[in-house]
Amino acid sequence: MTKNQQKLINSLKLKKYRNKENLFICEGVKIFETLVKSDFIIKEIFAVSDFIDQNFHVKKYNYTEVLETELKKISELTTPQKVLTLVEIPKKNIENTYFKDKLTLVLDNIQDPGNLGTIVRIADWFGIKNIVCSLNTVDLYSPKVVQATMGSIFSVNIFYTDLIELLKKHSESDIYGTFMNGHNIYKQNLSSTGFIVMGNEANGISSELEQFITTKLSIPTFNQTKTAESLNVAVATAIICSEFIRR
Amino acid sequence: MTKNQQKLINSLKLKKYRNKENLFICEGVKIFETLVKSDFIIKEIFAVSDFIDQNFHVKKYNYTEVLETELKKISELTTPQKVLTLVEIPKKNIENTYFKDKLTLVLDNIQDPGNLGTIVRIADWFGIKNIVCSLNTVDLYSPKVVQATMGSIFSVNIFYTDLIELLKKHSESDIYGTFMNGHNIYKQNLSSTGFIVMGNEANGISSELEQFITTKLSIPTFNQTKTAESLNVAVATAIICSEFIRR
Repeated sequence: MTKNQQKLINSLKLKKYRNKENLFICEGVKIFETLVKSDFIIKEIFAVSDFIDQNFHVKKYNYTEVLETELKKISELTTPQKVLTLVEIPKKNIENTYFKDKLTLVLDNIQDPGNLGTIVRIADWFGIKNIVCSLNTVDLYSPKVVQATMGSIFSVNIFYTDLIELLKKHSESDIYGTFMNGHNIYKQNLSSTGFIVMGNEANGISSELEQFITTKLSIPTFNQTKTAESLNVAVATAIICSEFIRR
Repeated sequence: MTKNQQKLINSLKLKKYRNKENLFICEGVKIFETLVKSDFIIKEIFAVSDFIDQNFHVKKYNYTEVLETELKKISELTTPQKVLTLVEIPKKNIENTYFKDKLTLVLDNIQDPGNLGTIVRIADWFGIKNIVCSLNTVDLYSPKVVQATMGSIFSVNIFYTDLIELLKKHSESDIYGTFMNGHNIYKQNLSSTGFIVMGNEANGISSELEQFITTKLSIPTFNQTKTAESLNVAVATAIICSEFIRR
């Protein structure tokens, strides 16, 4: 691995350089297997020799054989993997995306990389094809988010846009959001199309978006002493998606 | 803060010393507020002066005023908080616990601290009073787990024991477990009492426990291209608890 390659990979840990180079990092064998089956474009593969030997298709791509110690040096993971891939950030055009006949997740300022990655994985599981994030949501292509998606980043379409514009444009759709004082989700009629807005970890859905919500939902607590104050946003997303999709 | 205090707090990051001293660390204002309302025993509070001024009840306890820089040095958090408390590890006697008329979560070798903490928080939300962990599950009192419980550690009874013994003893109860090929949870009759076993992040429920499962469950994927291979164990626990409790 050359000094320049090392420098490039290290720089991609920052959003600024990911955007400049239009590249992001995928680490690990499992995510690699999902990647090669996707339509994402592989720019370069850095892999140890036994991985290359066992995965002949590596040689179809631009690849560099590296030592385990070299991978370890540039890895973000506590247990470095046998392969690290540089992948092109795809151009996703929200204008050409049709939202009308399906459910879409809308994320308002999600900050924790693990939460965003887990939400992408949940959407993929429940067959939700599109996620729209506010511009201040954590960057999808940061290594921690990519890792937490466990490969689902290649199957779900994820957009960043001004959510006020989005919801204004779709104000005739059902727009759901979770609030402390919303309707009990277990007893509420839920549509099979529309938007489900999930709010920031600490502050919930912002007041500018609240006006667009047509149905406020909440997950009731079954804890009579009310010691549990809230659910983690990824956990809440899972329960809500489960309720929408199972019916 | 004395050198000995610093040394003690640092040592409590390791399970070995937590068990020796019978103490664990709670960091942060929010978890402190839950702690003082619980029946856990506070051994010592380390807090900055403005926190002590604003929280008079601190003075009812054994406390030490510290500088923010001192807290920062011993903190496990990226944003250190105004208060760090040493708390006694309670003696929980599983022999005197009555499991028959309620739902209990059983955790078979959960390894990720964030997952364990999140599961405790989910149990608290859904009013599940007892969690029983296998002896190889990550330690509840590690700082990352405590943090991830968001205070629910003080409300849920959590035991560590030999799960084979436990399930053998309760073999006449309903014992549920999630498997890839289980019955669709959305269509299955679910009891309001019994045990729900959740398995290890990578390997699921161990084969020694599988024989005790009376009903195998699974959360069906709604992704037709099957790109999502699994759900995170905390997310799966949330969906399963939601299904059991809502009915």
